Amino acid sequence: MTNAFSGRPHFLQIPGPTNVPDRILRAMSAPTIDHRGPDFGRLASSVLEDLKRVFQTRQPVVIYPSSGTGAWEAALSNVLAPGDKVLMFETGHFASLWKSLADRLGLQVEFIAGDWRHGVDPEAVENCLRDDPQHQIKAVCVVHNETSTGVTSHIDKVRAAIDRAGHPALFMVDTISSLASMDYRHDEWGVDVTIGGSQKGLMLPPGLGFNAISEKARRIAEANDPKMSYWRWGEMLQNNKAGYFPYTPATNLLFGLREALDMLAEEGLNAVFARHARLAEATRRAVRAWGLELQCQEASELSNSLTAVRVPEGHSADNFRKIVLENFNMSLGNGLARLNDQVFRIGHLGESSELVMAGTLSGVEMGLHLAKIPHKSGGVTAALDYLKSNI
Amino acid sequence: MTNAFSGRPHFLQIPGPTNVPDRILRAMSAPTIDHRGPDFGRLASSVLEDLKRVFQTRQPVVIYPSSGTGAWEAALSNVLAPGDKVLMFETGHFASLWKSLADRLGLQVEFIAGDWRHGVDPEAVENCLRDDPQHQIKAVCVVHNETSTGVTSHIDKVRAAIDRAGHPALFMVDTISSLASMDYRHDEWGVDVTIGGSQKGLMLPPGLGFNAISEKARRIAEANDPKMSYWRWGEMLQNNKAGYFPYTPATNLLFGLREALDMLAEEGLNAVFARHARLAEATRRAVRAWGLELQCQEASELSNSLTAVRVPEGHSADNFRKIVLENFNMSLGNGLARLNDQVFRIGHLGESSELVMAGTLSGVEMGLHLAKIPHKSGGVTAALDYLKSNI
Amino acid sequence: MTNAFSGRPHFLQIPGPTNVPDRILRAMSAPTIDHRGPDFGRLASSVLEDLKRVFQTRQPVVIYPSSGTGAWEAALSNVLAPGDKVLMFETGHFASLWKSLADRLGLQVEFIAGDWRHGVDPEAVENCLRDDPQHQIKAVCVVHNETSTGVTSHIDKVRAAIDRAGHPALFMVDTISSLASMDYRHDEWGVDVTIGGSQKGLMLPPGLGFNAISEKARRIAEANDPKMSYWRWGEMLQNNKAGYFPYTPATNLLFGLREALDMLAEEGLNAVFARHARLAEATRRAVRAWGLELQCQEASELSNSLTAVRVPEGHSADNFRKIVLENFNMSLGNGLARLNDQVFRIGHLGESSELVMAGTLSGVEMGLHLAKIPHKSGGVTAALDYLKSNI
Amino acid sequence: MTNAFSGRPHFLQIPGPTNVPDRILRAMSAPTIDHRGPDFGRLASSVLEDLKRVFQTRQPVVIYPSSGTGAWEAALSNVLAPGDKVLMFETGHFASLWKSLADRLGLQVEFIAGDWRHGVDPEAVENCLRDDPQHQIKAVCVVHNETSTGVTSHIDKVRAAIDRAGHPALFMVDTISSLASMDYRHDEWGVDVTIGGSQKGLMLPPGLGFNAISEKARRIAEANDPKMSYWRWGEMLQNNKAGYFPYTPATNLLFGLREALDMLAEEGLNAVFARHARLAEATRRAVRAWGLELQCQEASELSNSLTAVRVPEGHSADNFRKIVLENFNMSLGNGLARLNDQVFRIGHLGESSELVMAGTLSGVEMGLHLAKIPHKSGGVTAALDYLKSNI
Repeated sequence: MTNAFSGRPHFLQIPGPTNVPDRILRAMSAPTIDHRGPDFGRLASSVLEDLKRVFQTRQPVVIYPSSGTGAWEAALSNVLAPGDKVLMFETGHFASLWKSLADRLGLQVEFIAGDWRHGVDPEAVENCLRDDPQHQIKAVCVVHNETSTGVTSHIDKVRAAIDRAGHPALFMVDTISSLASMDYRHDEWGVDVTIGGSQKGLMLPPGLGFNAISEKARRIAEANDPKMSYWRWGEMLQNNKAGYFPYTPATNLLFGLREALDMLAEEGLNAVFARHARLAEATRRAVRAWGLELQCQEASELSNSLTAVRVPEGHSADNFRKIVLENFNMSLGNGLARLNDQVFRIGHLGESSELVMAGTLSGVEMGLHLAKIPHKSGGVTAALDYLKSNI
Repeated sequence: MTNAFSGRPHFLQIPGPTNVPDRILRAMSAPTIDHRGPDFGRLASSVLEDLKRVFQTRQPVVIYPSSGTGAWEAALSNVLAPGDKVLMFETGHFASLWKSLADRLGLQVEFIAGDWRHGVDPEAVENCLRDDPQHQIKAVCVVHNETSTGVTSHIDKVRAAIDRAGHPALFMVDTISSLASMDYRHDEWGVDVTIGGSQKGLMLPPGLGFNAISEKARRIAEANDPKMSYWRWGEMLQNNKAGYFPYTPATNLLFGLREALDMLAEEGLNAVFARHARLAEATRRAVRAWGLELQCQEASELSNSLTAVRVPEGHSADNFRKIVLENFNMSLGNGLARLNDQVFRIGHLGESSELVMAGTLSGVEMGLHLAKIPHKSGGVTAALDYLKSNI
Repeated sequence: MTNAFSGRPHFLQIPGPTNVPDRILRAMSAPTIDHRGPDFGRLASSVLEDLKRVFQTRQPVVIYPSSGTGAWEAALSNVLAPGDKVLMFETGHFASLWKSLADRLGLQVEFIAGDWRHGVDPEAVENCLRDDPQHQIKAVCVVHNETSTGVTSHIDKVRAAIDRAGHPALFMVDTISSLASMDYRHDEWGVDVTIGGSQKGLMLPPGLGFNAISEKARRIAEANDPKMSYWRWGEMLQNNKAGYFPYTPATNLLFGLREALDMLAEEGLNAVFARHARLAEATRRAVRAWGLELQCQEASELSNSLTAVRVPEGHSADNFRKIVLENFNMSLGNGLARLNDQVFRIGHLGESSELVMAGTLSGVEMGLHLAKIPHKSGGVTAALDYLKSNI
Repeated sequence: MTNAFSGRPHFLQIPGPTNVPDRILRAMSAPTIDHRGPDFGRLASSVLEDLKRVFQTRQPVVIYPSSGTGAWEAALSNVLAPGDKVLMFETGHFASLWKSLADRLGLQVEFIAGDWRHGVDPEAVENCLRDDPQHQIKAVCVVHNETSTGVTSHIDKVRAAIDRAGHPALFMVDTISSLASMDYRHDEWGVDVTIGGSQKGLMLPPGLGFNAISEKARRIAEANDPKMSYWRWGEMLQNNKAGYFPYTPATNLLFGLREALDMLAEEGLNAVFARHARLAEATRRAVRAWGLELQCQEASELSNSLTAVRVPEGHSADNFRKIVLENFNMSLGNGLARLNDQVFRIGHLGESSELVMAGTLSGVEMGLHLAKIPHKSGGVTAALDYLKSNI
């Protein structure tokens, strides 16, 4: 068939879908079972329980056969109704997509403009909420890790800002590209709905979307009567109690999720976060050594999932990516929307390692040379220097 | 882990999810690829094109990362708006579920009652439509094969009835448990939206939902501005043109779908239908020889996907199913809703064969004995007699 | 590629290679590892230890990357030298092949003729050994389960016969098609070398050969200096102590063996034997109901691994098998050598179940009809009657 | 289970077994089929035919279920008899092992001493043969690529030397670690028996051994009556004609071999050789930049399959390897026999790529640092500089 099936070592270094460990691929290739039988019930119960740990919550997490986009829609549509006002922040392309989705649902979005190089400003949150004494804003929606820019927002500080404003708005956070890669605490940070997906830190193929749901959100959803059915939490939570689903679940992806949760538990969630931090820092050291510019401009907001790198003006990021793909069989992420052709993105989330990243950065360094993008040498060396001193 | 993972030969004879051929499981276990890269574009383009043949259409088919339930919602919500009137038929549990879903979407459903033992009456369709001279009914929604009862409705005749009534309502058909198992002609039968899923005749695990879309439906959808985003056809069709998707697709299920389409093409769609008919007839011969009653009461409406069998009053279908599962490691379908404990369902769709069905019917026959359900012997023999004479 | 790769449900009912459970196939598809690294050492040590249980021995079992034929040659060539006299028994084709192999090694074989319908006669063993007062016979070689005929020899009784004769000959037994299917006790029955293979009761693909080795055999081998190297036990046993091998082992088959040993332990060896006995008896009941003749003529010697069935004179077993393969996608074993075209063989060893055998016997019954082989109906019914009463 | 099964990205950079592409692992996980059925015959015929291209021969190649060691024994024992004289060359550990094996077979080995840093000297070959006017030397046995040292011998020049001497000895070459990695021409170079294995350039797990056989060798074997059976060519070649084997073949490894042959054909054999040369040269540039010494001392004999690197005196290669394994999850080859603890070996054969080697060399470079082995920095940079200029 196509090259993707050539069997040749492909470096999938986009910021998701990430490399699926062969152990998970094998788990997923077990024969499909009866989703109403006792074995399924036991499997799903264990998955639903262990999945909570990844969100650092004791509250329920629902699983949809859907992409992460579906989980966005699920989150908004369960607790909000057309006409409701929500506060969103333009941190990048995915935040903008989520905003468009909210528009389509008929929500009234107050969209705080951003430069796609910074995270959400907690002060801005506080101010907006203080300016809403009648509590018309029903939800504050933040993308934890903006996959288009490699900028992470401080969820704990946003929470504190909401609290300072004394505003009852729901707090909804997209962790699609941070979950199981960066520290994220649904309960401690008082998040009402956390949105996740399978194809990033969870190391699965795409096809599952998640909502972690606070008690407050659940109660609001119960009172709501949205004009949709697929995403409704009520029946889902009811069925989940015994390990079942209101409609046919994506059984084989659940097999994979069971395995992924085992792998994360074996490594330990903190070790997973530390690994991501280490590989991310090595990547940034390489970028700086090359003399290239990071898209993220705030040190405390640098993403540990991915690094978005700007190419010098007059050069094409997409041509560079094409050269890397054709010469080194490595996929890198592209610049999205307004960053089109200006940025390439290196994924270092999910299944990875020092040597995988060394290979990745080597491919980038050689690609910069081949694409004639002005840069200094020594990026890989800088990364290795860091890694060998930080085992 | 659980018994489902014991590796022991399991007979998955529920009417879906069906047995996934090992060839498809292996295809699905290929490493996930970049869904924005050129290889993916080629793969998805070929899948989107070849999938049309299964629906017997030249019009586009969209693929959702979702269950079949999602594809139901997609179909209704693209072309209808809250308050719109639709005509639905109570052929069984799944038709009733679809009706509930329509209710939740705010549609006004005229639900023609049924006894769960017959298909849709074309005359009733015609009468209802004639009674609607102002064309308030926006859509006629029919389940082609009712998975809860094993009753198939005559889609061609329903089409003819709509035509006779000269009514412009959209015609929407659920083929979740008939697609790629029974003859179904989206174009020839003038269907506007056909709903399908991956886990039945297509021999895949669950996780993909389909909408085949007529030009008329597409135009109506364009004019509609539904309060949802995930299911919208417009952007999906736009992206599909080049083999891409507006949000992350379920990549590995698409690998499996590519393989499934190849397998169906190798066998030939008509041969696939003939095989289903043959195995279905053998199953019915066994049931009759046992002296048990079919749930379906109309000979021309007997399903070739599954056979729903009634247990004599005073006996428990679920106890029988439990005995079969525990003693013979075979999963059979249960009686749903009002058929609870009265019916068991034998799936003979998707990946199957004469010998698989012989094993299946043997398990049923032995299970009837062990569960002390009154029956005559000779069911398997009757099935074999039929099969050996109809190669 | 070919039909074998069509993905269609194939019934592999030859008496080996047997159906490999998907769980084992998945285990085997893990990436190959360094056979000199610590992980490999742990894996192989556990496999070498647990494998002993299957032979019911506390003595070492060596594993060759080879077919079972290789394990035959290994057994003979380690302890014997050209010119040595051995006693062998013509129980069928495989015993004859082993005899030919011994001839080629330069051994002097006393080959006791047989009719291919009975096992080894313990009295004949005793007589032969008593006729050898000078102990020129160095080894007595018996096939436990003759795969060409479905006849099992009584190893315990042969042991007793050797003991009665007070003869010091080594006792060598081929358990290729009985191991992990029928009760076999290397230690208790005083066997010196037991020969096994991977592709039968162990449910693996072919590619591994085994020798279980008594202390006596090991000492004799040490004193021997055979003109071969690959099969030598000495270096193998030495390396095995730490979980390593003197040359590159068949790593991925060892992954599969680890999984197979787990599966056998989960089911329990006695349950495995009972299952084989039950399925074998069901098969024989079917054969008798058809009015066909078993190749085995002695009730106490009927094999639980396979059943060899004679077709009436004037009929072709191979034509029948061809019809079964083409119409029902089932492979049956053929008649070998002097049984050519007279016999077909039904495997019921390794991975199997009541329903798999019901499907198998149904295929045979329909095939007999299509091939116009005279038979009575009712075979499948007889098998089911037995099975349903013997859960 | 053990870490090897952790699912974490493991770099298997020993000189074989090599990384098995997932495409081959999946091919191998297809259900085992009847090795006497028509599908198998077609499969094996195609494999036996296409395998010839890899040896660059039109003569037959036989396939054993065995390790490469078995193929060594097969080669010698088919054409030679105890007492026969053979000429062998001490190029390293594997040449010495083959020599020991020949000793055990009772052959009289003239073993030309070597320093484990050079290949076979064609002049020495010529001289030895000229010193044998009575043609007592029956075979000249050379290891093409010595896996323990990374030294390649010039097979074409050895052939020329034999020809110059006008000696009729058979020419036998071990290509276990060169086949499908370095140019090798069985026919053109007049080799009589070429020995190969599955787990190196062919990218398969271990378990298959090969003999490519010249007409001359075949005739000599026919006249020979060796005291072995398993390795005999005669019956094997006879059975192979129709795609079958005299004993049960390693079916699933043959599935993998079919896929491997397809992959090699897709890439093209010359492209495969060029890739190996490129990755090998990059590795050597890194080694030189580190200031470390190559085990191979002759530029024209540097292996493209692996690079053996000497650690400075007073340092432990095994401690270094342990550090690399534990910190970077990479397996490197150890120093064998007299090179114990003095040498580590980097495999760059089979499935590999620029980025895999960049990751590998990065792991070596960081490991040298952690193990405090004196070295200059810049190895990875040197490799990348070479690679980026030699696409």
